[in-house]
Amino acid sequence: MRYQTLSHAVDADGVLLLTLNRPEQLNAFTVEMANELVDAFTRASDDDAVRAIVVTGAGKAFCAGMDLSVGGNVFGLDESLQPTMADMRERLTEPAIHEGVRDTGGRVVLSIFECKKPVIGAINGAAVGIGATMTLPMDIRIASEKARIGFVFGRIGIVPEACSSWFLPRIVGISQALEWTYMADIFDGHEAQRGGLVKCVVPPEQLLDEAMKIARRIATERSAVGIALTRQMMYRNSAQPHPLAAHQVDSLAMFYTSIGDGKEGVQAFLDKRPAQFQGKASEMPAFYPWWA
Amino acid sequence: MRYQTLSHAVDADGVLLLTLNRPEQLNAFTVEMANELVDAFTRASDDDAVRAIVVTGAGKAFCAGMDLSVGGNVFGLDESLQPTMADMRERLTEPAIHEGVRDTGGRVVLSIFECKKPVIGAINGAAVGIGATMTLPMDIRIASEKARIGFVFGRIGIVPEACSSWFLPRIVGISQALEWTYMADIFDGHEAQRGGLVKCVVPPEQLLDEAMKIARRIATERSAVGIALTRQMMYRNSAQPHPLAAHQVDSLAMFYTSIGDGKEGVQAFLDKRPAQFQGKASEMPAFYPWWA
Amino acid sequence: MRYQTLSHAVDADGVLLLTLNRPEQLNAFTVEMANELVDAFTRASDDDAVRAIVVTGAGKAFCAGMDLSVGGNVFGLDESLQPTMADMRERLTEPAIHEGVRDTGGRVVLSIFECKKPVIGAINGAAVGIGATMTLPMDIRIASEKARIGFVFGRIGIVPEACSSWFLPRIVGISQALEWTYMADIFDGHEAQRGGLVKCVVPPEQLLDEAMKIARRIATERSAVGIALTRQMMYRNSAQPHPLAAHQVDSLAMFYTSIGDGKEGVQAFLDKRPAQFQGKASEMPAFYPWWA
Repeated sequence: MRYQTLSHAVDADGVLLLTLNRPEQLNAFTVEMANELVDAFTRASDDDAVRAIVVTGAGKAFCAGMDLSVGGNVFGLDESLQPTMADMRERLTEPAIHEGVRDTGGRVVLSIFECKKPVIGAINGAAVGIGATMTLPMDIRIASEKARIGFVFGRIGIVPEACSSWFLPRIVGISQALEWTYMADIFDGHEAQRGGLVKCVVPPEQLLDEAMKIARRIATERSAVGIALTRQMMYRNSAQPHPLAAHQVDSLAMFYTSIGDGKEGVQAFLDKRPAQFQGKASEMPAFYPWWA
Repeated sequence: MRYQTLSHAVDADGVLLLTLNRPEQLNAFTVEMANELVDAFTRASDDDAVRAIVVTGAGKAFCAGMDLSVGGNVFGLDESLQPTMADMRERLTEPAIHEGVRDTGGRVVLSIFECKKPVIGAINGAAVGIGATMTLPMDIRIASEKARIGFVFGRIGIVPEACSSWFLPRIVGISQALEWTYMADIFDGHEAQRGGLVKCVVPPEQLLDEAMKIARRIATERSAVGIALTRQMMYRNSAQPHPLAAHQVDSLAMFYTSIGDGKEGVQAFLDKRPAQFQGKASEMPAFYPWWA
Repeated sequence: MRYQTLSHAVDADGVLLLTLNRPEQLNAFTVEMANELVDAFTRASDDDAVRAIVVTGAGKAFCAGMDLSVGGNVFGLDESLQPTMADMRERLTEPAIHEGVRDTGGRVVLSIFECKKPVIGAINGAAVGIGATMTLPMDIRIASEKARIGFVFGRIGIVPEACSSWFLPRIVGISQALEWTYMADIFDGHEAQRGGLVKCVVPPEQLLDEAMKIARRIATERSAVGIALTRQMMYRNSAQPHPLAAHQVDSLAMFYTSIGDGKEGVQAFLDKRPAQFQGKASEMPAFYPWWA
């Protein structure tokens, strides 16, 4: 893939490295970057050559937030509109709403949420505003010692976006989420780790190796079907009101993986050899997507 | 405002300090205190002179729980009733149910939940029973080294109330919530911090200063509209089954704050000066309340 | 009770000790064990002689996961079926689906979830696969220094089951849940404690004493009705979209416990003597189960 704001490379193990690539602008987020990220995650979801995804930033920053350099209405909103909740429920995909009203960060985050592939965020430097919230639907985040993270929306009179009000409380609890968004401070990786936002903090020169190592293990040692199911089960089942909803999905997921890659998995375990899983995320069992 | 059980003072920065004020009874909770707290939070929600709220206790205790000194039916319940779930769903505001059945702590907590203003709890001493559960809908809790916190309901054969079964698992996770309520032990601020219940533990003489500092930053450096939206988005969107619900609200909240206080926020950022936000919580964008 | 795979003993304080008892197979999980666990939790729920439950494993392991020694289709699934979500919603209790499709671990976990009695997991050794996920609906988990815990499903190409996609994010947050299930590593009690999965880690010889001590306190010092209500309120109310749902239940639970065991609880508190609660879990207030 050729993108203007991203570099995109799939290695021999099926790890897609997506690099936010506007280093002279500290990878500041633009509508073009949003559209390219949506495209990249949507394609990766059904591309069997991609088995895991790592996201990082080129140069010093991960993503320094929305590009404010243009001033004024930086979000490209159509101020002549007076959008309502009815518009958001019934006209979400109409061009006027899609272009003129919808939060661009939210479009990116929903495309990550829908993706069948696990996503590792490697936060190499400043990750503020949308640079912070875009990492929330990534499954595992690791931080460099140079990471600087901030949910800084309040500083400029706006609100946390990109579905962060859905994701952040699930990751760190409601009180930590409120504190970070009210205070709008910028904090380092150690504070992020204490709060449960990142798995670990590593020296800058080890960050990408560490992220790739995690991604390669998933890409090479796991079933593509099993991981795709696990990802959607965790996010979606946990948001249901009763565990019975999880059991209904669990049962089918166990059934179809047990008579699929699970047979090889058990046999390889008994043979004491690495498993060779054949399942493809492009060919999910018929009950998937169960929420449709 | 003049209350019997509370002191109420709004400072020049718009911080309302609400002090539970029955120090000789260790600020034990009564139906009168409940009614006054509901009144104070309901008024503060739409009072533009109030931009943040700090709650603490006068004297040694924060709140030592329901006043049990009368013995017997301390909750003032109408024992002649046999209330059902249908009553709670259909007759909740009828006087017989409102006075004779509804959990008084729950009425307070719902008024805090509905409030547009951020709430900081400054736990200065004993906070047990309703004294603990009333702090859960407060957005940030800080504790003095003298804080003693306990979800002690089980000791007297009753249940955790005040919607704590909704809030506590969101703050500290379901297992910590179950452990604290089953064991019904009283613990200090450090245990509370380890569990994720309080942001920090400070010396007693610094507690109120620290709480006021947090509240003043929000009151003076944040948009009143932006904070009111953030507060409701975090609590309500995170409880929805799918992030799309958050995106629908996010998009409108970003739209209206971007063409509102966000314009000043971006300009002030570019000018490297403090922002002067003009939005008022009494004049929210038309989509608010979106859940109505 | 006489079981083939479990030992079952109720002590004088009303603590049921359930021991997974296939030590030579490291207590590996079988369909027979699943059925016996469902039976034990279902009976304990309404047996007033049981006031708290401790679960542990005989010998070196807690439960080393599904018994894979038979190879192939270890889950006993009926491969001739092509089950759908409609089957799981409409035919869940039909024998063909119940025996041939439903996840056995899920049946166990749902029986623990429905149980009125608090459950303490004492993880004495290996707890992997279903050995780990069956502990998630237990209210408090404690680990021996010899505990080895792993959500290892991904290693054999299958998915996390037993409603773990519902429970694990509620206990440790969504990101920790995803990391543990993707990586499928085996970790010790200290890592489990850091992640919020276990309350504490104790020397092996103290594990059962510690678990029994917790269970005995609940059994002897708490109201059976109050604890049964607390358990269901915490799990079910916290999964509702709005705290009003909690308030509706809280109010009834407070009403009936206040005019029940709460009277003795308050009087005993005022008399400075231990309370003698009389309520029975077999005779819950009429609003229970409120979700039916």
